Amino acid sequence: MSPDRIPVIERIMGANDDLAAQNRRLLDAHHVHAINIMASPGAGKTSLILRTAQALQGRQRVAVVEGDVASSVDTDKVRAIGVPAVQINTGGGCHLDANQLRGALEQLNLDEADLLFIENVGNLICPVSFDLGEHTRVAIASVPEGDDKPHKYPGIYSAVDALVVTKIDLLPWIDFDMAEFQRLARSLNPDIRIFQLSCVTGEGIAEWVNWLLALAQTR
Amino acid sequence: MSPDRIPVIERIMGANDDLAAQNRRLLDAHHVHAINIMASPGAGKTSLILRTAQALQGRQRVAVVEGDVASSVDTDKVRAIGVPAVQINTGGGCHLDANQLRGALEQLNLDEADLLFIENVGNLICPVSFDLGEHTRVAIASVPEGDDKPHKYPGIYSAVDALVVTKIDLLPWIDFDMAEFQRLARSLNPDIRIFQLSCVTGEGIAEWVNWLLALAQTR
Repeated sequence: MSPDRIPVIERIMGANDDLAAQNRRLLDAHHVHAINIMASPGAGKTSLILRTAQALQGRQRVAVVEGDVASSVDTDKVRAIGVPAVQINTGGGCHLDANQLRGALEQLNLDEADLLFIENVGNLICPVSFDLGEHTRVAIASVPEGDDKPHKYPGIYSAVDALVVTKIDLLPWIDFDMAEFQRLARSLNPDIRIFQLSCVTGEGIAEWVNWLLALAQTR
Repeated sequence: MSPDRIPVIERIMGANDDLAAQNRRLLDAHHVHAINIMASPGAGKTSLILRTAQALQGRQRVAVVEGDVASSVDTDKVRAIGVPAVQINTGGGCHLDANQLRGALEQLNLDEADLLFIENVGNLICPVSFDLGEHTRVAIASVPEGDDKPHKYPGIYSAVDALVVTKIDLLPWIDFDMAEFQRLARSLNPDIRIFQLSCVTGEGIAEWVNWLLALAQTR
């Protein structure tokens, strides 16, 4: 990267931070707790959101913002279970930014939501650099991705409040050392909260949902 | 993105294309066929390279360039089986570029290689925008990522010569529609060559290796 680009990047990041702060104030004014969910493609972000929204039904009102490079397949799935959802298509962009979230928030009735799940673009690298105005950051790591990912993508493991290990129903068929994986994650982030669950069997969902219910109390 | 950034980006991409052309001439001069391998984190890029290098032993001389945000764990694995490997750490960058590959090529003895595998950073979005000087582009999609990925990441599916579907040993335990997945991929890229394999069982490796052997004849 040439040195003359750096001021440009600083301006972009500063503008993003300002918009993120505005988003957070807007969410706070409506008593909405927002959760930014980041993961690799195919780690199970949408499956987790669907399963969680169903588990929270009648207890907390959920809304969803779906970020994707292209398509609205995830938004269609979320709306199909009766949950309000807005699609952001980044048109090739590899992460969401605060300005995109602002546009999505304008399309939601925030007075009818307690918890807002923001599904970021499938990418372990760039999303974590962009504050959206969320209150809580969650990374998902699926068992089939392997137990070495904290070595390779330390940025995201260092920056999130919680880590959800998904697809644990596949553990019998995959060489994945859960203790080593957790040790690596905690070496980067000693305070990280770690959940293990399967959206197929439902194992572990209750503990994750209880944590979300406690978060919703803080809004 | 503000309009005043566009000339900056054009200069960067133009400079990358020039360096990629230089890399390709260098590789051609040494009769090395280079394959740029792109995939999500955890799709099985390194496992495929290890398994392929072992299958090619005694038939073609292999060298490897490993791209990662951080760590050299993959390079260590490749060297452990006796294959020359060079690590590129992008320091947070979400893709390889031609200048990084040039630095790596200077560290390899190209007269002792027939096939060069370049493992790109784990990311389905950005790597495809940067020509490295490779001759062939391959995407890996692992079964656990799900059969809807071509919908969401059309850029990479449109741009590669071949698609390797990995982890097919997990098909009995995962809801993955192979016919639908292939139909989606071919709707974006009618000429795409598709392989299905498992690095655990070895199923499908021979067909993939035979294709590589044919590629190596063209160098």
